Amino acid sequence: MGRVTSRHKVLRLDVGGDSSRVIDTVACEEPLEIRLGDEVFTVTMRTPGHDIDLAHGLLRAEGVISSREDVVSARFCSDLDTLNVLRLDVPGRDPSRAVTSTRNLASLGGCGLCGTTAVDAIENVVAAKPPETLWEPTQIVAALDELRSRQPVFDKTGGVHAAGLVPAGTSGLAIVREDIGRHNAVDKVLGAALVTDVDTRGALLVVSSRASFEIVQKAAVAGISVLACVSAPSSLAIEAADRLGVTLVAFARGSKMGVYTHDHRIPH
Amino acid sequence: MGRVTSRHKVLRLDVGGDSSRVIDTVACEEPLEIRLGDEVFTVTMRTPGHDIDLAHGLLRAEGVISSREDVVSARFCSDLDTLNVLRLDVPGRDPSRAVTSTRNLASLGGCGLCGTTAVDAIENVVAAKPPETLWEPTQIVAALDELRSRQPVFDKTGGVHAAGLVPAGTSGLAIVREDIGRHNAVDKVLGAALVTDVDTRGALLVVSSRASFEIVQKAAVAGISVLACVSAPSSLAIEAADRLGVTLVAFARGSKMGVYTHDHRIPH
Repeated sequence: MGRVTSRHKVLRLDVGGDSSRVIDTVACEEPLEIRLGDEVFTVTMRTPGHDIDLAHGLLRAEGVISSREDVVSARFCSDLDTLNVLRLDVPGRDPSRAVTSTRNLASLGGCGLCGTTAVDAIENVVAAKPPETLWEPTQIVAALDELRSRQPVFDKTGGVHAAGLVPAGTSGLAIVREDIGRHNAVDKVLGAALVTDVDTRGALLVVSSRASFEIVQKAAVAGISVLACVSAPSSLAIEAADRLGVTLVAFARGSKMGVYTHDHRIPH
Repeated sequence: MGRVTSRHKVLRLDVGGDSSRVIDTVACEEPLEIRLGDEVFTVTMRTPGHDIDLAHGLLRAEGVISSREDVVSARFCSDLDTLNVLRLDVPGRDPSRAVTSTRNLASLGGCGLCGTTAVDAIENVVAAKPPETLWEPTQIVAALDELRSRQPVFDKTGGVHAAGLVPAGTSGLAIVREDIGRHNAVDKVLGAALVTDVDTRGALLVVSSRASFEIVQKAAVAGISVLACVSAPSSLAIEAADRLGVTLVAFARGSKMGVYTHDHRIPH
């Protein structure tokens, strides 16, 4: 309950070699129910820890909140023996405000649902295109190197993603978060920035995973200028980044990277 | 629209080396809306193709259907220019039948929501424990080797997961599917088995990704005896596999693997 890792017995087999029984450390996965007042907003499977960051990041990406002042209180249900139900009070919440998540695409799309519909839905909550902040390739490589060196849960388990933020005009990762879900790692970073007043506009966001549509969505809502992912991009991630003005870097490994959109922000 | 891959311009940078503009092939990601009659059941981001398999697999894992006869018809909305809205008619659907997905955990959990609640929810739709079929470590290694050799979309894009099924008493993968989402790849395989009358009880299911709670859920509902994943397991995946009687193999790479639950099914 609330743990980040747990230990389990495992039989290690090697075909043609020895087998042994050892204790292995694995990443915890638990459901988190996020409530807005008395209403259940969503349930996400996540690694416990930094849950208030996670909730702020998720609600911001969904267009429910836009600043930390929108949230009057955030607390775990106190009559429980788990830390898996988090209640936020968002009194000024406008029920008509756009909600962009996949689970709500249906209400927007109807017949005609396609990638373009999905990107349209994001545009409703992206206030403005990201600033034209430049990021040198060496800064991107350095940020990803630093991210790899700051993943204690991954080092123990091999089973979690990480995300990190370099604010505009600074160097080094101001915030790093790990989670079993790559979307959660991004929500935790961007939520922590919201809670602690770290400006995300113009920032560099680095992520240990692939670049999906939803990662680009979260970056765009936060005004991220350059999103750099270790692994492959999807078609819709590229389309969304193109339309929303985000520079999308993928396959960023060692000294190499691919820049899929808005490469004018990366001097070369 | 309906494409599996698409081509995009990319700027390839190498810090201290050359840069070049090339055309890259990436995996398509598009929303799929699944309707039960006129009601929207869910929207999932997926790689187009094998969508009817995907819908059958998803609905089976969620406890909405248990055989292909439960689905009278499955067709794309014909008045659309996309193939992203799929309507299934499931006349005998019992609205009280348990639905196990994360998105519905909230309705089950309430205060007290935890991993145990999540596993309880699966138990409602798992009819029986999987058969005690034995799978030799060499069979698991061979199935994963074959899976790696049958991933044409991954070979082109580096950006999709794959899953494959070896039915009990057979050798070689009877069904292989790729998708940008690992859950979708599993749903497509198990859905294809349902549609084509391939028995999944006692089978070996191999997956190119990590082992999460939801992958174990899908395997358990289908009566899979051994689930073997290339990457790390989560705590809740182990807990669910233990309770539901599934043998969970993870970190299955080369000749090595870790067996986290019910290792009596793997002679060693």
